[in-house]
Amino acid sequence: MKPIPFRDLDQRARRLAQDMIASVRYAVLSVYDTAQDYPHLSRIAVQADMDGVPVALLSEIATHTRLLNTTPRAALLIEAEPEAKGDAMAQARMTLQVIARRLPAEGPEHAARLARWLANSPKARAYAELADFHFWRLEPQGGLLNAGFGQNYLLQATDIKNPRP
Amino acid sequence: MKPIPFRDLDQRARRLAQDMIASVRYAVLSVYDTAQDYPHLSRIAVQADMDGVPVALLSEIATHTRLLNTTPRAALLIEAEPEAKGDAMAQARMTLQVIARRLPAEGPEHAARLARWLANSPKARAYAELADFHFWRLEPQGGLLNAGFGQNYLLQATDIKNPRP
Repeated sequence: MKPIPFRDLDQRARRLAQDMIASVRYAVLSVYDTAQDYPHLSRIAVQADMDGVPVALLSEIATHTRLLNTTPRAALLIEAEPEAKGDAMAQARMTLQVIARRLPAEGPEHAARLARWLANSPKARAYAELADFHFWRLEPQGGLLNAGFGQNYLLQATDIKNPRP
Repeated sequence: MKPIPFRDLDQRARRLAQDMIASVRYAVLSVYDTAQDYPHLSRIAVQADMDGVPVALLSEIATHTRLLNTTPRAALLIEAEPEAKGDAMAQARMTLQVIARRLPAEGPEHAARLARWLANSPKARAYAELADFHFWRLEPQGGLLNAGFGQNYLLQATDIKNPRP
């Protein structure tokens, strides 16, 4: 049986992918757990960085963070409207292949990122400045966009970065 | 920094895990894509089988199904109320380590499973009986339950199967 066909990426699909990242607050992270020999899944807090690259705010004590420290090749599932009622399979969603990199928790770039994060998620103030929390850049290497039934697109890293300010 | 502590699994947590599986309709699947060397993520339709084991209804042409055919060790993220408003990080969720096994699409057991599935998801009638769709048992081998902030439990396979009819 032939595999699922992919459509050519057009401006509408590229814009959808960029908009989904621009508005993301939570996503599902998968990191391979080499000790257990299974993928590990968790829900994490994610926002778009200034250039449209997903950034996560992660605690050092969490299982997924310990796994990322040794296995930075991971994946992220972003869904357009995770809280919408109705058929989850009809909603736009995309899986991104990412390489995770922990960012330093100091300096003006960190301060600007933290301020943006808290403006979008005021409740994160309760933990965002604790010593065990760090921002992680999740640099997209490629991905798949499912924009609804039968609408599948391959994404390149350059399709995902957002050129808009 | 010490890893996140786990609580002893009690009856309340075990019941929560079983109830989350009993009421699941959609979940996130992760299968490792050995050719790409990244985890693959997708949202799939999942229900509980008679014995409380998650069962998925998957199309043979989907990327995740092709990956499961060669890599049956996978993971499933089940969330208590994926459609609820509010803080996604406060919701109960669990990651299950599973071994996927395609079920035959014939015989009385298949007919009973299909009838139960359609009773829970009437809209699936549009595709459930197409030739490329099969049920897959996702046999839990273990897992992690996060029942809310700081409430983490390790799950064994025997904690997940539901003894109730």
